[in-house]
Amino acid sequence: MTVIAEIFSQGEELVNGQIVDSNAAWISQQLLELGFTVSRHTAVGDDLAALTDLLTEIANRADCCICSGGLGPTSDDLTVAAVSQASSLPLVFDEIALQQIEQFFQRRQRAMPEINRKQAWLPSGAQRIDNSLGTAPGFQLRYLRCHFVFLPGVPAEMQAMFNAQVKPSLQQHFQLNPDQLISIKSIGIGESAIQQRLAELEIPDCVQLGFRAASDEVHTKLRFRADYPEQLKLNLIEQAAGLIGDYVYTISGLNKTDDVDLIGVIDRLMQTQQCSVSLFESFSHGLLASRCWQKNWLKQAAIDGNGLQIADDDAIEPHLSQLAANLRQNQRSDFALIQAYRQIPDSSTQQIQIVLYNSLHTDNCVRYARHTLVGSHIHTLQQQAATLTLDLLRRYLQSTCP
Amino acid sequence: MTVIAEIFSQGEELVNGQIVDSNAAWISQQLLELGFTVSRHTAVGDDLAALTDLLTEIANRADCCICSGGLGPTSDDLTVAAVSQASSLPLVFDEIALQQIEQFFQRRQRAMPEINRKQAWLPSGAQRIDNSLGTAPGFQLRYLRCHFVFLPGVPAEMQAMFNAQVKPSLQQHFQLNPDQLISIKSIGIGESAIQQRLAELEIPDCVQLGFRAASDEVHTKLRFRADYPEQLKLNLIEQAAGLIGDYVYTISGLNKTDDVDLIGVIDRLMQTQQCSVSLFESFSHGLLASRCWQKNWLKQAAIDGNGLQIADDDAIEPHLSQLAANLRQNQRSDFALIQAYRQIPDSSTQQIQIVLYNSLHTDNCVRYARHTLVGSHIHTLQQQAATLTLDLLRRYLQSTCP
Repeated sequence: MTVIAEIFSQGEELVNGQIVDSNAAWISQQLLELGFTVSRHTAVGDDLAALTDLLTEIANRADCCICSGGLGPTSDDLTVAAVSQASSLPLVFDEIALQQIEQFFQRRQRAMPEINRKQAWLPSGAQRIDNSLGTAPGFQLRYLRCHFVFLPGVPAEMQAMFNAQVKPSLQQHFQLNPDQLISIKSIGIGESAIQQRLAELEIPDCVQLGFRAASDEVHTKLRFRADYPEQLKLNLIEQAAGLIGDYVYTISGLNKTDDVDLIGVIDRLMQTQQCSVSLFESFSHGLLASRCWQKNWLKQAAIDGNGLQIADDDAIEPHLSQLAANLRQNQRSDFALIQAYRQIPDSSTQQIQIVLYNSLHTDNCVRYARHTLVGSHIHTLQQQAATLTLDLLRRYLQSTCP
Repeated sequence: MTVIAEIFSQGEELVNGQIVDSNAAWISQQLLELGFTVSRHTAVGDDLAALTDLLTEIANRADCCICSGGLGPTSDDLTVAAVSQASSLPLVFDEIALQQIEQFFQRRQRAMPEINRKQAWLPSGAQRIDNSLGTAPGFQLRYLRCHFVFLPGVPAEMQAMFNAQVKPSLQQHFQLNPDQLISIKSIGIGESAIQQRLAELEIPDCVQLGFRAASDEVHTKLRFRADYPEQLKLNLIEQAAGLIGDYVYTISGLNKTDDVDLIGVIDRLMQTQQCSVSLFESFSHGLLASRCWQKNWLKQAAIDGNGLQIADDDAIEPHLSQLAANLRQNQRSDFALIQAYRQIPDSSTQQIQIVLYNSLHTDNCVRYARHTLVGSHIHTLQQQAATLTLDLLRRYLQSTCP
C-alpha cells in the first residue's frame, strides 16, 4: 500500500533563496528508506495566512507530513500559531517543555530570555517531541487525513529528533514495506566512468539503479523490493562492486552497522592493525587533520601551505622520502602520510588547477598517488584533496603491501 | 504594488531527496532582487496528474512562476505535456527549435538522437526561450492570472537563459520596485538575545525585521522599501547595530562590495594594519588553519589536539603566555592567537561540553575569551570554536588595545 508523504519547510530565508532547503532533501531520504512515497515539497515564508492555507491543503491530500522550521522564540516564528488556527486547536502551556528549555540555558550558565517561554505553548492534544540540542520542542498531531510532525529548522536538532523519536513513531503508526537500499561508496572515480563499467551488468527491471555524486565521492545506489531474493541481491551487489574495483571503500545497507564514512573505515583498519601515522598536510591546510580528531593512531599533524609546493614532478620523490623519514623517526610512527601539490596557472579560464601528490611511507614500501584537481571553488578542491590523501592510506590498509 | 511569484521545480530526484533544490534558491534570489515577492516553492516528481494540478493551482494564485526541470527528451520529462493538458493549448512543432537542437549536436560532431525531436514541440502561442548550452528550449506563456516561464533543470543552462532572456523580459512585463536588504552579521550572541536588545528600537511597520541563525553566527536582517528615505534607513541600521554591540563584525547590503564573511573582514584589517599572526590550534584541529589558506599574514599554523587540554581555569593563563611568547619569538609574528580547551564529562546527557579558552598576545596586551560550547556533533562545535577564536582577533583589530 502506498503511503503518501509531503515535506513542508517554513522560513523567509528559504523562499527568498538565502539558504538552500537541504532539510527537505534529508527528510525525503529518510522517508523513502522507511517506505513512504514522497509526493511533494513545499516551502513558504513567515506569513500566517500562507502557512494556514498550506497546512489545510496538505491535511486533505497526504497521509503524513514532516514540517521543519518556524518553531523559534521570535515574532517571525509562526508555525504553532498557524497549526492552531488551521486546526482550531487552542494552545496549551506545557510545563515539561518549559523545564527543558530552562535546563538548556542552565547548562550553558545563562538566564532564559523571557521570549523563550513562547516555545512551551503547544496545540492542545499534540504529542511533544523533546529537543535535547536546542530550545524548540517539536510535536506531532493528526489533522484531517494527515499525521503531521513539526520539527525545528536547525538541521542538527531536526535530524537528532527525527532519528531518535520520529522514526520509531512513524514505524509504529504506519504499515510500511521499505525497499532495501544498498550504497556502493567509491572515491577517485566519476559517475560516468562507473556507469560505463556497469554497462555489462544485467540489472533486472525491478531493481532501480541510481547515483549520488558529491564533490569527493560517488555512491552507486541499488534499490531492491522488500521481497527480492537475498542471494540474488548479494550476487548483484558483489558483481557491481567488482566492476567498480578498488575505488570502492565500503558498501552500506547490507546490515545495520556498516554505514560508515571513509574515516570510519580507516579508523577500524588502523585499530585492527594497531598502526600509527604522522601527517604532513599542505594544500588542504588543516581539513585533513580535522577529520582525524581524537584518533589515537594519529601521532602528529603538521600543516604548511607553502612548504610543499613542488616545482616539477621529477623533484618530488626524493624530497617526500626525506621528509617522511624525518617524520617517522621524530614521531616514532609506523607510517608517514604526506600531501604535496603544485598549482598550475591557467590564464584562459577562471578555474583553479592543482596537481596533488600523495605519498604513504611504511617500513616496507612507499606508495605514491598523483591527481589533477580542477574547479572554481578552492574550498571544494581542498576537501577533495583531504579525501584523496586519506584514501591512499585506506587503499594501503585494505591491501597487502607488495 | 506587490507582485507575487512562485518557484516550481520538477524532478523525481528532488522529491526523493537525491539532490537538493539549489535552483529554487538561486531563482528566488534573482526574483527578490528584481522586486518580486516570492511566496512559495514547490517540487513535485515525474507524475502528469501532479504536475497538471500544480500548474492550475499556481495559475490561480500567483502573478508569475518560474519553473525548472522536466524539459528533457526522455519519457519521464512531462512538463510540456502537463502545460498543454492544464491550459488546453495544443502542442505545435517549432522548426527553429529543431534547428537549434540539431546545431547543438552538429557542433559536437554527433548525430541527433531521434528522441530529441520531442524537445521542439511547444504549447501553441508560447514564446520560445533559446538555450545555447543544451538541447532543451525554454518557453513562456500566460495561463489564467499567471505569467509562466519554463526553463531546463541543468543549473548552468537555466542560469544563462534566466540572465540573458528571462530577466529583461520580466522587467518589461512587470512594474517592479525592489526592496533594499541589509544584513547585520554578528558572532557570539544568540538570536533571542539580539531580539531582546532590539526591543527598545522603534521599527516602522513598513520595515521588515528577520533573523538567520547558523551554528556560529546570526544575521539580523532589515528589509526596506525602495522609496524608504535614505537617511532614516541609515539611522535605523546604525541604532540596531549599536544595540547589538561589538558582536557585530560587518553590515552587508549598504553598497555592492561589502558582502564579506568573517575571514574577509579580518583579511582587510590585517592588510591595512600590516600585521602577522601565528596560530596554535587545539580543539578545532585544523579547521581554523583551513580558513586562513593563502593569507600572507599567517606565519605559522600549529595543531595539537591533546597538547592544550587544560585541567582547570587557574592553570591556564601563565601556560598560554609562555606558549605565546615562544610562538611570537620563533615565528617573528606580531601576534600569537592561541586556542585551548577543556572537555567537561557529562554523564547525564549524550552531549559534548567544551570550555574554550582563546587568547591573543601582542606587544602591548593579552586578551582572553572563555566560552562554553554544548552540542552533540563534534564537527559543529569545532566549527564554532574556529569561528570564536578568529573572532577574538577581529575584535582586537576593530578596537584599540587598552
